[in-house]
Amino acid sequence: MKTLAAQVITPEDLLKHWQGHRALTRHVIEAFPEKDFFEFSIGGMRTFAKLTDELLSIAVPALKGIVKREVSPYSEPEEKLIFKAQYLEKWDEATAEIDKYWQELTIEDFNDTFNLFGQYEFPIIHNVLYFIDNEVHHRGQGYVYLRALGIEPPFFWER
Amino acid sequence: MKTLAAQVITPEDLLKHWQGHRALTRHVIEAFPEKDFFEFSIGGMRTFAKLTDELLSIAVPALKGIVKREVSPYSEPEEKLIFKAQYLEKWDEATAEIDKYWQELTIEDFNDTFNLFGQYEFPIIHNVLYFIDNEVHHRGQGYVYLRALGIEPPFFWER
Repeated sequence: MKTLAAQVITPEDLLKHWQGHRALTRHVIEAFPEKDFFEFSIGGMRTFAKLTDELLSIAVPALKGIVKREVSPYSEPEEKLIFKAQYLEKWDEATAEIDKYWQELTIEDFNDTFNLFGQYEFPIIHNVLYFIDNEVHHRGQGYVYLRALGIEPPFFWER
Repeated sequence: MKTLAAQVITPEDLLKHWQGHRALTRHVIEAFPEKDFFEFSIGGMRTFAKLTDELLSIAVPALKGIVKREVSPYSEPEEKLIFKAQYLEKWDEATAEIDKYWQELTIEDFNDTFNLFGQYEFPIIHNVLYFIDNEVHHRGQGYVYLRALGIEPPFFWER
């Protein structure tokens, strides 16, 4: 293993951090009434179902692309999910897939550059941080939707 | 220096990542009309001025507390800012202070546990990730406020 500059978080901890955020996002999906998950939005933004489509279309496909070093364009699934329960099932499948692919990442991989979706050419660590940030960002939007619907969102630190 | 487990991001990169997010949050503050920054909200949530108060009350005080290992309770400033320009000025002061205090962190510090604000007893790396996540979360709320006001928010990748 080549020598690395001193760094501040282990892969195990970063995975735990990401999966902690994903657990919170799952609570947010659960908190939406069935109808509002698919229909409610503010200011012409996407519904939380649509935002969840994006999160699912990034997480596993992106991580798999990184691990296999296969550059594929970003795409959302053809199959349209129509129940929240289907989203939760996909979410849980993704949780297991992420855990599995993460094990294939070596410590050196994080500093390698990868052209994610053929669009984002960055060190892998920054691709991973981007997935997390993007999820936190959209989930923050979901919190506003829930509040606007008169629903108390889960605590931010509930992971 | 003691031996550390292999890890995935340098302190310099993490600072750059945080300050990149802070630059984007600054754009979001700028994007609000003066009046709406202080008055607009959805579903009984805080205004973006109030959310910015929180972000300012965490960033420098928290980092300073960590560096000095001084446990002080969380508090928001007594001085009430009434113009967006004052917030932007405070924001820029905080940017410089963060850069300054960050230099005092050693690589070992990140794995040390610190009782942030006397409330959050975690390894310092997790305290820092929490500041960033919290900012991304609240900024995501700001994006919805802007959209609800008919204003195009800055691009998420504009740092």
